[in-house]
Amino acid sequence: MFRYVVRVRYGDTDQMGFAYYANYLRWFEIGRAELLRSLGTSYRSVEENGVSLPVVEAHCHYLEPARYDDEVAIETGVRELRRASVRFGYRVVRVRDGRVLAHGETSHCFLDRQGRPGRAPADLVSLLERAPRAEPEP
Amino acid sequence: MFRYVVRVRYGDTDQMGFAYYANYLRWFEIGRAELLRSLGTSYRSVEENGVSLPVVEAHCHYLEPARYDDEVAIETGVRELRRASVRFGYRVVRVRDGRVLAHGETSHCFLDRQGRPGRAPADLVSLLERAPRAEPEP
Amino acid sequence: MFRYVVRVRYGDTDQMGFAYYANYLRWFEIGRAELLRSLGTSYRSVEENGVSLPVVEAHCHYLEPARYDDEVAIETGVRELRRASVRFGYRVVRVRDGRVLAHGETSHCFLDRQGRPGRAPADLVSLLERAPRAEPEP
Amino acid sequence: MFRYVVRVRYGDTDQMGFAYYANYLRWFEIGRAELLRSLGTSYRSVEENGVSLPVVEAHCHYLEPARYDDEVAIETGVRELRRASVRFGYRVVRVRDGRVLAHGETSHCFLDRQGRPGRAPADLVSLLERAPRAEPEP
Repeated sequence: MFRYVVRVRYGDTDQMGFAYYANYLRWFEIGRAELLRSLGTSYRSVEENGVSLPVVEAHCHYLEPARYDDEVAIETGVRELRRASVRFGYRVVRVRDGRVLAHGETSHCFLDRQGRPGRAPADLVSLLERAPRAEPEP
Repeated sequence: MFRYVVRVRYGDTDQMGFAYYANYLRWFEIGRAELLRSLGTSYRSVEENGVSLPVVEAHCHYLEPARYDDEVAIETGVRELRRASVRFGYRVVRVRDGRVLAHGETSHCFLDRQGRPGRAPADLVSLLERAPRAEPEP
Repeated sequence: MFRYVVRVRYGDTDQMGFAYYANYLRWFEIGRAELLRSLGTSYRSVEENGVSLPVVEAHCHYLEPARYDDEVAIETGVRELRRASVRFGYRVVRVRDGRVLAHGETSHCFLDRQGRPGRAPADLVSLLERAPRAEPEP
Repeated sequence: MFRYVVRVRYGDTDQMGFAYYANYLRWFEIGRAELLRSLGTSYRSVEENGVSLPVVEAHCHYLEPARYDDEVAIETGVRELRRASVRFGYRVVRVRDGRVLAHGETSHCFLDRQGRPGRAPADLVSLLERAPRAEPEP
């Protein structure tokens, strides 16, 4: 999967001393943005070309907490690519020891400029077909 | 389900003009905190009594976007109560027209003061047994 | 000043157990939005009428921490109203004991639909003139 | 000043299409954390040694908006170092064209393990004395 490292910031932590659970969805966003960039495009240019990929479903399993100042690698891949939707899979891995802290997925539809769902544009499909795959988690 | 109304703030929106998807997990947190309060306790006092309920899994389906200044009702109930875990179900409903914008769930384990998972304390169980139920979404 | 109560949520806290400092700016946003609502308009309708009030300056003094589940009252008033700018003053007060936890201010210019700065529309000026005043903090 | 680059994420934007104003305080936090790291320590180890630097004042001037996917450099330096407090200065600079989007500062006191304010530990002082200076903004 495509790997991108972020650091847990003070503002990410909660009073338990862990990264707050909603931040993982933010990390997933970073993961898929950087995956697109690694494929030679960017979500900004996808949107500028009139296509958006709103999230229709998000899922996260939390295995171990991330703590302040931890470096975590967001590993992102395509789990399923269909005519009118795409599903990304993610892992959040603590860099120090390689422990998987969380895994999850997000599903997206493709909207055109008028906000109507439809088929993914061909050039985006061919990019996503070349993306690393995210195998289902056991 | 127990109902608690929040408003979409400017800082919640993204450049699509919608509430950013990670905020729904924050709203779920508000929903379960206020559910506990409606049962006569609070998550703060649960923690002060040495029990925490970290999230082990979160899930959200996004049906329609929430927009700036929308009032949304977070409806929260208990979906499943087991010896060592509890699952809450949620709906996010636009107050203006009653449309369900999202639904989801979170699963939690019970940790003691030493951070060890274990059975829920009896008094918390009896409170949660009296909570409104969250039926599975169709 | 106009008073609006919010509660410190788990996601607002950091590992020190306090509300993270950036959240106060979010509370200030809530304060001025609710101040406008109390005057009979809303920031949403101001924007729909083609005017926006971006923040050009923000300032916050932190006196005492807000903690998880604290109720805090955001007190908001107009500190200075000029032709082409407005300054709001804020206080964050712990509801339980009336302690002032923070105070601050934000300055805004008025932008038209094309994003050009200019004079505030007359109807907005007359509303803001009727708003509670925020005296300078000692 | 010490320079650290971050990217504006979707979750940072608001419906105006700009990075929401509270995020700049988060970027300032990142700036001072990375400044400390560049000096050979980390805020995590400072805290582990029993010292914390809570923010007592924050200030930000917003000159131009940051937009989705922009890379911004957070430039951080020490503006004033006193016995019992330190003030950091910041600039947020758009990488693409070097435009200063914002500048600001934060003031901090030094707390010991018991949460009492006091003098900065000598080793931290000598580190901060070697930090790049943040000149006052014109």
